[in-house]
Amino acid sequence: MSAAGTSVNTTSPLGLALDLAGTFAFALNGALTAVRVARLDIVGVVTLGMITALGGGIVRDVLLGALPPSTFLDWRYLLTAAGGGLIAFALNRQLDRLAISITVFDALGLALFAVTGAAKALDLGLGGGQAVLLGAVTAVGGGTIRDVLVRRVPTVLQSELYAIPALAGATVVVVAAALDLPGLLGALLGAGLCLLIRLVGVGLRIDAPRPPGGPEHDRER
Amino acid sequence: MSAAGTSVNTTSPLGLALDLAGTFAFALNGALTAVRVARLDIVGVVTLGMITALGGGIVRDVLLGALPPSTFLDWRYLLTAAGGGLIAFALNRQLDRLAISITVFDALGLALFAVTGAAKALDLGLGGGQAVLLGAVTAVGGGTIRDVLVRRVPTVLQSELYAIPALAGATVVVVAAALDLPGLLGALLGAGLCLLIRLVGVGLRIDAPRPPGGPEHDRER
Amino acid sequence: MSAAGTSVNTTSPLGLALDLAGTFAFALNGALTAVRVARLDIVGVVTLGMITALGGGIVRDVLLGALPPSTFLDWRYLLTAAGGGLIAFALNRQLDRLAISITVFDALGLALFAVTGAAKALDLGLGGGQAVLLGAVTAVGGGTIRDVLVRRVPTVLQSELYAIPALAGATVVVVAAALDLPGLLGALLGAGLCLLIRLVGVGLRIDAPRPPGGPEHDRER
Repeated sequence: MSAAGTSVNTTSPLGLALDLAGTFAFALNGALTAVRVARLDIVGVVTLGMITALGGGIVRDVLLGALPPSTFLDWRYLLTAAGGGLIAFALNRQLDRLAISITVFDALGLALFAVTGAAKALDLGLGGGQAVLLGAVTAVGGGTIRDVLVRRVPTVLQSELYAIPALAGATVVVVAAALDLPGLLGALLGAGLCLLIRLVGVGLRIDAPRPPGGPEHDRER
Repeated sequence: MSAAGTSVNTTSPLGLALDLAGTFAFALNGALTAVRVARLDIVGVVTLGMITALGGGIVRDVLLGALPPSTFLDWRYLLTAAGGGLIAFALNRQLDRLAISITVFDALGLALFAVTGAAKALDLGLGGGQAVLLGAVTAVGGGTIRDVLVRRVPTVLQSELYAIPALAGATVVVVAAALDLPGLLGALLGAGLCLLIRLVGVGLRIDAPRPPGGPEHDRER
Repeated sequence: MSAAGTSVNTTSPLGLALDLAGTFAFALNGALTAVRVARLDIVGVVTLGMITALGGGIVRDVLLGALPPSTFLDWRYLLTAAGGGLIAFALNRQLDRLAISITVFDALGLALFAVTGAAKALDLGLGGGQAVLLGAVTAVGGGTIRDVLVRRVPTVLQSELYAIPALAGATVVVVAAALDLPGLLGALLGAGLCLLIRLVGVGLRIDAPRPPGGPEHDRER
């Protein structure tokens, strides 16, 4: 199940490019969330953009014990995150015309981080199952922190498909590595599958089943 | 104060059994919380169950520097957490007849994690005081993350006794280890004491004293 | 950019004194927040005081990989945090007469932790830029966790200057170390600058610019 040499690691040019693209997408998403939902000023907008962009990777690196997180050692991540936040702040009216942009940026970040998170876990020697889980945690981490900070119930707990596409995308990467497929192929297939499931879920409002008996009233404080 | 050989560590069969039992109790609690309070679908229910079940141990392992957390290396924890979440999702109406079940599962998880958290800290060479604190952090960690995610003020900050029984249970484990008592005895006494204090507190609504002058109005944003 | 021997590290008497002073200020602030905003009992008040006081340093040490966090190895931090929480609980009416005390304690903690966080990062060999960022994370970390736990949008995302003075204070420490100035001078200048900017910002309600087009209505769930 080890994938040395074949998986997309975050130090290869391809892995870095995918990771930075995911960082940029989440920075745009987080900053737009700050503008539209929480109505923050420029410092808050850029800060929330950076936290959303960098949060997943920081959680991933903490759980892997790869400390300090690559964020704090590699300025390309910080500049990409800050740049995304500033661009979203400046262009938010223009981006607004693309009404679904906030959701699409989130889905892009989700797909890219599921792939790079799983690849990094494989590189560090974790088993395939752990790599799938860590990919999913990386993918949903930044958005979950974002939602907690602006006081929303995190998307990962809400109805639309969110954790499932992340798990699916990470699984593709792990399977591709086990089959010795080229890392690029696994990464693109994984990210594509995650993005597809997520956007279909958003578009069709496909929700996962609800519990039998359902929730009636708040019986708990 | 070192307890090598006598404390209940999480690699011994007993320690593992206690740790998995705590994981299962918190998974049931977290999943029931998701059904009743936050009204989530199956993915959200299982996810919140797993986060509640695994959160305390992950915080413990991060603080101990024992990374990656055992959760990501040992599938028994993941399967136990996922299983608890699925069972609570499927049986939530039946479990509902036991009206207080959600609180009892929480108290069980609290008691078991206070004990195993303190034991793991002793195993890794921390002093007795640190082990008590880490046991309490392990015990309250998962439930605190759960409450933040569903937007409640965490139980650990609210009135009923919560941090105190966790500290008491962890203290029993540390004292038992210092006295060279068998690990099983210390673990059972500690968990029993924690459970007793917690359930008495819940039953009698014993609250800790409130500040002199009391809170009058929100004077702070 | 290395600053061995000149920066204020947290093991020198001066560094320790500044770090403990910051811990005490944040413990008072967190405990007063618990009394006034969240109306908690004594356990909740002391717990929130301790989390606010210790949270920033724990986040710093986790990100640096300096585990277990110094908090769990050094009782002076725990006792200072607990003492601050208890004092605030007992004297909250007296402290209340100093109407702005809650904000001033927060600003003091912010200034002191920005300085000691940056110094610790330099001591552990991180570059100047990373040290600035880590100082700021240390400074805003405890208060951010406090706000999440009592369900407020964190101050760091809100309008008044908060992240900027922390970055400024940490920058002074890094520049002073690069210029081989005495650590005490850099620390005092950095903390003073941070405190000044923060209090001027609070006093004059200077807000950072808001986005063009501004937030109109909640267009997002």
